Amino acid sequence: MRHVILVLAVLAAAIPATAGDPLPSWNDGASKKAITDFVARVTQADGADFVPVADRIAVFDNDGTLWAEQPLYVQFIFALDRVKALAPSHPEWKEKEPFKSILEGKVEAALAGGERAIAEIVMATHAGMTTDEFEKIVTDWIATARNPKTGKLFTEMVYQPMLELLAHLRANGFKTYIVSGGGVEFMRPWSERVYGIPPEQVVGSRIKLKYDMRDGKPAILRLPAIDLIDDGPGKPVGIQEVIGRRPIACFGNSDGDFHMLQWTTAGDGPRFGLIVHHTDAEREWAYDRKSHVGKLDQALDAAPKEGWTVVDMKNDWKTIFPAGKE
Amino acid sequence: MRHVILVLAVLAAAIPATAGDPLPSWNDGASKKAITDFVARVTQADGADFVPVADRIAVFDNDGTLWAEQPLYVQFIFALDRVKALAPSHPEWKEKEPFKSILEGKVEAALAGGERAIAEIVMATHAGMTTDEFEKIVTDWIATARNPKTGKLFTEMVYQPMLELLAHLRANGFKTYIVSGGGVEFMRPWSERVYGIPPEQVVGSRIKLKYDMRDGKPAILRLPAIDLIDDGPGKPVGIQEVIGRRPIACFGNSDGDFHMLQWTTAGDGPRFGLIVHHTDAEREWAYDRKSHVGKLDQALDAAPKEGWTVVDMKNDWKTIFPAGKE
Repeated sequence: MRHVILVLAVLAAAIPATAGDPLPSWNDGASKKAITDFVARVTQADGADFVPVADRIAVFDNDGTLWAEQPLYVQFIFALDRVKALAPSHPEWKEKEPFKSILEGKVEAALAGGERAIAEIVMATHAGMTTDEFEKIVTDWIATARNPKTGKLFTEMVYQPMLELLAHLRANGFKTYIVSGGGVEFMRPWSERVYGIPPEQVVGSRIKLKYDMRDGKPAILRLPAIDLIDDGPGKPVGIQEVIGRRPIACFGNSDGDFHMLQWTTAGDGPRFGLIVHHTDAEREWAYDRKSHVGKLDQALDAAPKEGWTVVDMKNDWKTIFPAGKE
Repeated sequence: MRHVILVLAVLAAAIPATAGDPLPSWNDGASKKAITDFVARVTQADGADFVPVADRIAVFDNDGTLWAEQPLYVQFIFALDRVKALAPSHPEWKEKEPFKSILEGKVEAALAGGERAIAEIVMATHAGMTTDEFEKIVTDWIATARNPKTGKLFTEMVYQPMLELLAHLRANGFKTYIVSGGGVEFMRPWSERVYGIPPEQVVGSRIKLKYDMRDGKPAILRLPAIDLIDDGPGKPVGIQEVIGRRPIACFGNSDGDFHMLQWTTAGDGPRFGLIVHHTDAEREWAYDRKSHVGKLDQALDAAPKEGWTVVDMKNDWKTIFPAGKE
C-alpha cells in the first residue's frame, strides 16, 4: 500500500500545476480568454456558433508569428549562407553584385540593389536543383543554423505559447495550416517535427517547377521563376489554391497578414483573427510600424475595428521560447 | 431470451454476405489481390514494407478513374451548358465562333477551332466571377445535370469499386487525394459528398486568382488566364505544389496519368500503381488507344514493365455504379 501511495505521489508531482489549462504559457487576460472562448463556442455541439469539424480550418503566418524573424528573416540568412557555400563554383561572384558584397560580409550593400538584388540571391540559391536535392539542403542547414544574435538554433526560437495554441486547436478538431510569405519548400522539411504541421498543410511562396527525367530517373526541377508570392493579397490566393475553403481562424503578426486576416474574418459565422504584437525587447524584440522586418502598421490600426485580438507579447506570454531553450 | 435471439437474427441478416471483405464489388483475382496485398504490406507494423501513416498518400485521377468520362468530359458538358445559359447576355455570340456553333448544337464544329476554341469556351464560362459565385454555379449545375447517354446524374456515375477502394485506403490510414486534369474549383464543391474527399485534398488545373474588394467586401476573382494545367507532366508538379511529398499509391486510367504513375512508383520503398482499363462496352464504355476522351496508349504499354496493375473493368468489377443507380 505504501508503494501505491508513493507511485501516486510521484505521478502527481509529474503533472504540471497547470494541468487542465491548455495554454499554460499564456497569462490570464483578454487575449487568452478570446482564444479559449472562441474554441469553446465553435465546438459546443448544441450552440448557435457550432462549426462542423470539416470547416475548422486555422491558418498561421510563420515568420514572427510561430518563430522569431529578427534580426533578419531566417530564409534570408539561409540564402546568404548558400551564397557562401556555392561561391567556390561561382568564381565570377567575386566581381558581381549582389554576390560580391555578400561574400565580403556587407549585407546592406548587397541589398542596395533592391528587389532585383533579392531576386538574384533567391534564384541563385533556391533554383537549379531537384526538389529532393533542395529538401536535403534545407534539412542539413536547419539542423545546425543558429540565430546570429542569440546563438540558438532557429528551431529553438519558436514561440511556446503558439505551440500550445496549435495543440489546443488540433485537440478541438481544427486542421492547422501555415500560410507564409516564405518559400513553401523551405518550411516543409521541418514543419512536422517543429510545429506538428505536415508538409501538405504548408502554404507558401513558390517558384515554378518542371517534371523531367534526370539521369534516367523522374525528378522535379526547381526553375528560376516566381510562381506565387504568398504574401499580402497573395495569401488569400494561396489559401484558395491549396486549401480551397475560407479559414475560420487566422493568426499573423505583420501587414503581410492583413489580407489573410481580412479574408478570414469577413466570412459568415464565428470568426477569429489574432495579431502577435512584438512588445518584449528584453525576452525577444520590440518592433512594429517602422521595422524593416515584420512591419506592423496597417493591420495594427485595423485590429480594433475588425475585432482582431492583439497579443501583447510582454504581458500576455509567461514564456516566449520552449523550456530549456530560453 | 427469445427476444434477444430474434434481435441477433435480425442483426445478422442485416450484415451483407460480404462482411469482412473491404472490396465487395471487386471480383476475386489478380487486381483485387494486388490492392489488398499492398495495403496489408504497408500497414503491418513489424513488416519490412511498413509505411508510417503520415506517408500513406494515395492520389486518384478523376475523369475515367473515379467517374465516367464518356461520351464527353463532364466539365466540358458543364461549359457547353454555361455557354447556353450565358448567351442572353452575349448577343455577339450568335455570330462569333466557337459560341455560334455551340448555340446551334454543333459541338464538333465548335471544336474545329482546336485548343484556341477550347480556351475561349473555358475562359468565357469559368472566369470573370468570384470563387464564391463559381462554387454556387457548379453546385447548382451538378445537382441536376445528367449524362446525355444514360440520363443519370453525373454524380451517380461514379465507380462503386473505386468508392470501396477509397474507403479501404482511408480505413488503413491513407490520406486520399484527387489529382485531376479537370478544374480544381469544378470538383471541390461536391468531392466531399460524392467521394468523401474534402476540398483541401483536391488538386486540379487552375486559372489565376486575384484578391480584391467587391462591393466593399473582400472577394477572390477568377481571372481569364491559365495558372496550372494539371495533366501529364503537370500532375507531379501539382502534387508537389499542393501535397509536397511523393505519394506511395497512384490510380489513373489514361496517358494523362502516365507521369503521375511514373513519379509515384519510381520512389523508394513499397509503391503501387493502377490503371483502370475501360473494357466493358455493355455496362459502361470500352475504349483505350484511339479514344478522343481518356486516351490510354503509352501508359498501357508501360504498365507491365513498370509493374502497374491494370484493372479489366469487365472482368474485375462485379458492379460498375452504386446500387440502385445502375
